[in-house]
Amino acid sequence: MTAANPLDAYPQSVRDEVARVRRVVADLHAELPRYELVVWTAGNVSQRVRNADVPDGSADLFVIKPSGVSYDDLTPESMVVCTLDGELLDGDRSPSSDTAAHAYTYQHMPHVGGVVHTHSTYATAWAARGEEIPCVLTMMADEFGGPVPVGPFAIIGDDSIGRGIVETLSGSRSPAVLMKSHGPFTIGADARAAVKAAVMCEEVARTVHISRQLGEPAPIEQAHIDSLYDRYQNVYGK
Amino acid sequence: MTAANPLDAYPQSVRDEVARVRRVVADLHAELPRYELVVWTAGNVSQRVRNADVPDGSADLFVIKPSGVSYDDLTPESMVVCTLDGELLDGDRSPSSDTAAHAYTYQHMPHVGGVVHTHSTYATAWAARGEEIPCVLTMMADEFGGPVPVGPFAIIGDDSIGRGIVETLSGSRSPAVLMKSHGPFTIGADARAAVKAAVMCEEVARTVHISRQLGEPAPIEQAHIDSLYDRYQNVYGK
Amino acid sequence: MTAANPLDAYPQSVRDEVARVRRVVADLHAELPRYELVVWTAGNVSQRVRNADVPDGSADLFVIKPSGVSYDDLTPESMVVCTLDGELLDGDRSPSSDTAAHAYTYQHMPHVGGVVHTHSTYATAWAARGEEIPCVLTMMADEFGGPVPVGPFAIIGDDSIGRGIVETLSGSRSPAVLMKSHGPFTIGADARAAVKAAVMCEEVARTVHISRQLGEPAPIEQAHIDSLYDRYQNVYGK
Amino acid sequence: MTAANPLDAYPQSVRDEVARVRRVVADLHAELPRYELVVWTAGNVSQRVRNADVPDGSADLFVIKPSGVSYDDLTPESMVVCTLDGELLDGDRSPSSDTAAHAYTYQHMPHVGGVVHTHSTYATAWAARGEEIPCVLTMMADEFGGPVPVGPFAIIGDDSIGRGIVETLSGSRSPAVLMKSHGPFTIGADARAAVKAAVMCEEVARTVHISRQLGEPAPIEQAHIDSLYDRYQNVYGK
Repeated sequence: MTAANPLDAYPQSVRDEVARVRRVVADLHAELPRYELVVWTAGNVSQRVRNADVPDGSADLFVIKPSGVSYDDLTPESMVVCTLDGELLDGDRSPSSDTAAHAYTYQHMPHVGGVVHTHSTYATAWAARGEEIPCVLTMMADEFGGPVPVGPFAIIGDDSIGRGIVETLSGSRSPAVLMKSHGPFTIGADARAAVKAAVMCEEVARTVHISRQLGEPAPIEQAHIDSLYDRYQNVYGK
Repeated sequence: MTAANPLDAYPQSVRDEVARVRRVVADLHAELPRYELVVWTAGNVSQRVRNADVPDGSADLFVIKPSGVSYDDLTPESMVVCTLDGELLDGDRSPSSDTAAHAYTYQHMPHVGGVVHTHSTYATAWAARGEEIPCVLTMMADEFGGPVPVGPFAIIGDDSIGRGIVETLSGSRSPAVLMKSHGPFTIGADARAAVKAAVMCEEVARTVHISRQLGEPAPIEQAHIDSLYDRYQNVYGK
Repeated sequence: MTAANPLDAYPQSVRDEVARVRRVVADLHAELPRYELVVWTAGNVSQRVRNADVPDGSADLFVIKPSGVSYDDLTPESMVVCTLDGELLDGDRSPSSDTAAHAYTYQHMPHVGGVVHTHSTYATAWAARGEEIPCVLTMMADEFGGPVPVGPFAIIGDDSIGRGIVETLSGSRSPAVLMKSHGPFTIGADARAAVKAAVMCEEVARTVHISRQLGEPAPIEQAHIDSLYDRYQNVYGK
Repeated sequence: MTAANPLDAYPQSVRDEVARVRRVVADLHAELPRYELVVWTAGNVSQRVRNADVPDGSADLFVIKPSGVSYDDLTPESMVVCTLDGELLDGDRSPSSDTAAHAYTYQHMPHVGGVVHTHSTYATAWAARGEEIPCVLTMMADEFGGPVPVGPFAIIGDDSIGRGIVETLSGSRSPAVLMKSHGPFTIGADARAAVKAAVMCEEVARTVHISRQLGEPAPIEQAHIDSLYDRYQNVYGK
């Protein structure tokens, strides 16, 4: 007799979506080394699986990378499934050591469908100084609608990283937060959007850093930032 | 009955050239990530298709990248065709959100056959400070004939980006302009020449930036710049 | 009659392990250019082969890269086997010119099973100033448990490089030492762990360098460093 | 009747060696983009073909890259053969626009068997300031035996670039010269050695640049530089 898989207690629609999202999340991990956002086994991507049977979201799941596995060895099968408490529900390995921060974010930000964490170089360099990235590029106004904010110093072991992410991003247009002395976390409607935010976060962190090395970038008026953000979020790609 | 393709109203020679240029433009997009000038779906390349039946150029077309498509998914078929008003003539997707700037440039600079836009890191870093790149390298004298100039701050939505490009480049030897707080646009006799200008623009932006980090690069006398530019444009490659 | 292979004097278990480790070490060399830690033929990885017949470790061997061979041409067969005196025991080529430093480390640090040496750019830049890398990132607390220390200036030809490595690392949690004016050496339980340390050493050298270019990174309290290090070494991955 | 190939006037041994060297030089060009020393069609590698019939070297030839050809299209057949006057002897295309500088170097430095020219970023950044790279790394002592010197400002069109190379390198241990406002030229016993020197030149230019961004690298005593250089040139790899 085989032990029952705890996923079997979930509706078929959830089980089907878990299977699909395992592949999505496995594939998206390849974008992290491709854009040079991670080295070795660092970094992780997750995506929420909504459970329509429990509309308040408390029975949602998410799919995330296992801990300490090389990017060359990430397959849909090796991804793990967790509840929103951050407990492992299905998978052969331990979930990423950042799982609690992902879980807290899904629990407290119901519109978030994807979360990404990296130690990408330039974003982490701003985080190490605890300094927000000022909005001095039109592409930054488009994507972030203002500066990329800094979250508090928090260490692993309780929910302080998750709280820092949620509190900082709840008051910001930015889908990225630079956790102090640590690195960026990004959110999105799904994992792909959160990966895009991680890529763009490093891009603006790098470009603004390099610009400031030889002087001060020109500020962009708030009205222009608002107008660019509004157009990009509401017109572009719709 | 199938709706008529508006391209059918154009001469056969134009339709044949559109087919050829779709492939040229699709292939050239691969050079942008290869030279690390773009991330995600940013950046775009276009090329003019001349309509010999209307010698004043007003019935020319151009082929450009569709909006928001990943670099892995760019095929000749996915490229879109626009009129010089920037209106979509043929294609399954919306044209790039920078199409109006390309269109304005083709309308007002009849010798221009290709346009490229990127947010390449070092060029954009100069653009963020609104600072031209001084001509302190012999390869820069060859390719740009002087500094790479800065264009005005302009936001998307009317023809102000296009006007900024045309006004800045009309008074310059440089095939590249750094649009303030935004990034570089480059022009050329065809799309390949504009891509080369985008690659060289980032190359000189990076090298001069790095040189200035530890001191001031030595100026090159204007007579030497003129002589290098003249040789390169008139002798080299002929 | 063929000359006897000196390896034949070793127990079968050692000969089997040598064969396995040749492949491990050859494969791990590919990680060095992949993470841009080396150019041309620079850099080397080695791994200890324990000889259970002589429990004090004095008859252990190690497998290392041959001297001056291109990364494209490294095969298990081309790896060479040395004694802990740094003498060639088996192999068609001379061992790496850094062999004496590897040998000294294995001789004097019995728990070390792998050694890596590179001239990775940012780590070497700190080494050239003779300046330790301060521990200002949570990932650095995890992996290094404090600053990455600097070892003495030492030149090739006697055991001064090996002594510098051993003396510096014996008093440190860090698996990496920046040998002054030279570059990083890293150690680990096996060659893979030492390669990981080399990758992480360059990662933190780069990120802290870039952070400091625009100001001073915030310090992390010693108690937090201790707590992060303890969790990472004792919980994570177990 | 086909026009006689001017190569037919040369001994069979020279014609055989030309065929071999065409492949060597074509293959070595791939190392330039691989190590990110060049973009687009910039950069060139050449190798001397000695003519044993004329021992004073005046009838030697060299094989070099054609002008303006993409790195993807370089084949042994597309390489061109020149006399030491820099005149095209055999080939379907024009020789590189830097051919005169290569020719002058072969004419005046009989021991030189290979020449490489790039605009690699960090080396060119030092060249733009007209500043030599100080010898502050043990790998630099090994390979260059001292600083990498700066050559005079010189523009294309006469033999002033070639003279600058020869005059600067004749008084130096370094196989690399930074031509002011232009970029590095390197020499070697053959093209492979000159490519290695180009790779190492950029490596030390980058590492010393980065080190100096946050302070002053420690000097290395002249006696240590001499000892490292002597060992590396006379022992290593022999």
